[in-house]
Amino acid sequence: MADTIEESNISYEELMDLENDFEDVEVEIIRKQYEMSKALYAKRAELVSQIKAFWPLVFEAAPMDIDEYIQPSDSALLLSSLKSLSVTRFELDEDPVKGDPRSIAIRFEFDDNDHFEDKVLEKKFWWRAGKDGFRGYVSEPVEIRWKPGKDLTDGLLSLAKAVYDEQKGKPRPAGKDKKQEKEPLTDKQKALKEKIDQTGMGGVSFFAWFGYIGEYITAEESREALAEEAEERRKRKAGEAVPKKDDEDEDMEDAEDSDDEDDDDDLDIFPAGDAVAMAIADDLWPGAIKYFVQAQEQDILSEIDEELDDEDDDEEEEEDQEEAPKRKKQKA
Amino acid sequence: MADTIEESNISYEELMDLENDFEDVEVEIIRKQYEMSKALYAKRAELVSQIKAFWPLVFEAAPMDIDEYIQPSDSALLLSSLKSLSVTRFELDEDPVKGDPRSIAIRFEFDDNDHFEDKVLEKKFWWRAGKDGFRGYVSEPVEIRWKPGKDLTDGLLSLAKAVYDEQKGKPRPAGKDKKQEKEPLTDKQKALKEKIDQTGMGGVSFFAWFGYIGEYITAEESREALAEEAEERRKRKAGEAVPKKDDEDEDMEDAEDSDDEDDDDDLDIFPAGDAVAMAIADDLWPGAIKYFVQAQEQDILSEIDEELDDEDDDEEEEEDQEEAPKRKKQKA
Repeated sequence: MADTIEESNISYEELMDLENDFEDVEVEIIRKQYEMSKALYAKRAELVSQIKAFWPLVFEAAPMDIDEYIQPSDSALLLSSLKSLSVTRFELDEDPVKGDPRSIAIRFEFDDNDHFEDKVLEKKFWWRAGKDGFRGYVSEPVEIRWKPGKDLTDGLLSLAKAVYDEQKGKPRPAGKDKKQEKEPLTDKQKALKEKIDQTGMGGVSFFAWFGYIGEYITAEESREALAEEAEERRKRKAGEAVPKKDDEDEDMEDAEDSDDEDDDDDLDIFPAGDAVAMAIADDLWPGAIKYFVQAQEQDILSEIDEELDDEDDDEEEEEDQEEAPKRKKQKA
Repeated sequence: MADTIEESNISYEELMDLENDFEDVEVEIIRKQYEMSKALYAKRAELVSQIKAFWPLVFEAAPMDIDEYIQPSDSALLLSSLKSLSVTRFELDEDPVKGDPRSIAIRFEFDDNDHFEDKVLEKKFWWRAGKDGFRGYVSEPVEIRWKPGKDLTDGLLSLAKAVYDEQKGKPRPAGKDKKQEKEPLTDKQKALKEKIDQTGMGGVSFFAWFGYIGEYITAEESREALAEEAEERRKRKAGEAVPKKDDEDEDMEDAEDSDDEDDDDDLDIFPAGDAVAMAIADDLWPGAIKYFVQAQEQDILSEIDEELDDEDDDEEEEEDQEEAPKRKKQKA
């Protein structure tokens, strides 16, 4: 018996085909769960709409993988004006048969607030497959109509949108070629890169999340990549020969964290945008009542009041734009 | 509109009833997923049985919430002799209609090894409801037939088993009464408590996990508690009056982290046993191929060799029982 896969008769392709079979089941399960819980989510929306602080408190009690991206000024804005949140599987809603159950739309509704004009901000995440082996969420920057001087992203989001609009029409070299044919940055890309470097992304606003792009993968490329993969799987299952790509091993790593992706990440103003979207869709959204109850038990509202009272003593730096504390107090 | 739940017309009971409706869907989904993926898990077991280091490597690449409990001597034992792992929903297997899909059995198979005689160690986790509001996993200590001087838990596991056997027959005060009628510790319980205090549970062997108990809740108590809850839900949905318990709010906290549980935890040699079981069942088990591939990519086997070469320089303390490194080297 072999110690490692190289010494065994099992190939990576066999393992990956099996992983894809598991993934097919997973996708079916997401579809069923969405159907089965739709009425319950509607009921929840109706119930919690009667508790004004529901969604703000859910965000206050959010798990670390969301909370770490919420700056004090974001938190103040959410507390004072987040009216509701909803997560839908929009491809399923549009086409229950062909739609991908993994694609999600995350919709925030806001009351009037001092920072932006929008009442609704909705960000869609399409589950896509790239010809380079990428599997995951891609998105488009969502513009926010900031009030003058109130942009929590300090221009980052609109720059990201401008770069996206400039890039999305361009034909893109597929797969491996990307590495070789590295194009020089455009002026807008240079400006964005400079801005990102200046900003130091640690303290960037949660609202920069609306700028997440991920990869530039069109619906066509995704369809083709999946069809190609399905055909290879079919052949391997039927025992037919499948031509090996030049470097399968490297391909596998590419799927996880390719150089290409790193390059794209350089110009993404919120590289963890997909992870945050998943945390919202798979944890915060289904667990909202649990997080709300936690927040109530910890009496977060009164804690926040106390914190805000002490605020002058605090060493928080990025808060020059923040006047939300005053609004907050009127409410609590 | 109300800011908090107290000011709204919504009661905690309404929210909790809705949570229970969501939980019902979740349970149905677990049932369906188990059915739909059974054949795939069988296929995976057959494939990976041809790669000797498969399960040891999966454990080497295990996520933090499992890995943090694996001491160097546990790791050496797993690397040298873990043959296979499997997770089953044993209540579903026994009774597809009435069985609870949440209950899980985690089964380890071992090759001959220097530490114990057992070829199979299987631990079952029953999903149970207590009359005090507890919902979660309970288990029984699993004995390990250690070879002389080779007990990685240094007697903790057999003490935990002795205490469990002594306690399980006893009638237990149900619900709130537990708090008042606190019985004095038996001699065995005292011995266990002393041993736990001496040990300093931070460095305890992963194999102490086989000693996790959780709560002492019988199948009957659980059935009765669930029937009671179902009846209350039915009444509330039908708009009938449900007598309020004396302190509903406290009840809710009890379900999360009661004083009782804390007391029980004092005598549990692996208080996080349920969380580790869930991490194995919901993450390590379905993601085994992913973790295996990660381990291969990181070339963990050769790293381990290097570490073992340097071992004399290391400051590891609890390793006086460890001779596994030698065995390890013969294999890699």
